[in-house]
Amino acid sequence: MTHQATKISIVTEKLIEAGVEKICLDAGATGYTVFEGSGKGSHGVRTRDRPSVVGAFALVKIEVIVADRATADQIAEKIASTYFQSYPGIVYLETVEILRRDKF
Amino acid sequence: MTHQATKISIVTEKLIEAGVEKICLDAGATGYTVFEGSGKGSHGVRTRDRPSVVGAFALVKIEVIVADRATADQIAEKIASTYFQSYPGIVYLETVEILRRDKF
Amino acid sequence: MTHQATKISIVTEKLIEAGVEKICLDAGATGYTVFEGSGKGSHGVRTRDRPSVVGAFALVKIEVIVADRATADQIAEKIASTYFQSYPGIVYLETVEILRRDKF
Repeated sequence: MTHQATKISIVTEKLIEAGVEKICLDAGATGYTVFEGSGKGSHGVRTRDRPSVVGAFALVKIEVIVADRATADQIAEKIASTYFQSYPGIVYLETVEILRRDKF
Repeated sequence: MTHQATKISIVTEKLIEAGVEKICLDAGATGYTVFEGSGKGSHGVRTRDRPSVVGAFALVKIEVIVADRATADQIAEKIASTYFQSYPGIVYLETVEILRRDKF
Repeated sequence: MTHQATKISIVTEKLIEAGVEKICLDAGATGYTVFEGSGKGSHGVRTRDRPSVVGAFALVKIEVIVADRATADQIAEKIASTYFQSYPGIVYLETVEILRRDKF
């Protein structure tokens, strides 16, 4: 039996990873996962391989699952308003089904 | 034209990656994808950069897409019951649309 | 307030990454994100660690979000017809909710 939950994905610069994670945990998320990647967005191509790109500009994707939809909306809005006027990044939500609600 | 399918995502320790993949293939999945990352969960912060963390504790995300929903449920339940009493980890399901059903 | 959008995920060989990205941008996508991984599919196990596997065969997952569903379908069909007769790979679509429609 599964339960509906919401996954929040944040794709942004590594520079603000810690700040994004703090917003998630402060709002009640029990954990998050981070993956490093590269990409192209409205602020230009970022890549793992270009020597001039330092670690702080590497792209990360942070994923957070919360059982409560209102909490998900709150986290997404807070991240967008705190960071995405000044830093490149996107945040989006997806409905997922989890197995054990008490883990989230 | 697309067909509805189910994506199973398992986020857990690298230590049990092979066991999780075996469950997926034994249940009939035709393939899987693995990404390495880091994260924080109920069992403490895991990170790529902390020297004391060995490879076996690195976090991986395993993604598997199956066309049949019952197979997806069976895989998710089997992974949770086999591993997630003893190991940290989560499993969740998402509905996706695939282009060619015969590939899954 | 969120808006519905479509995420296209392409999992394939690194060899055709640039071609896939060009199709996305030519169709009007404003950006994409790339993650490197490993996996098993109908064309055999691929892994980061096996010495005989060269860079060109590494697996990548390219994610693209577009606000318009017809554009998403067009991108997915074009990638499948251009590459997935000759190269291993899958493409799938997911509905996501974005915060600011003007970014996509």
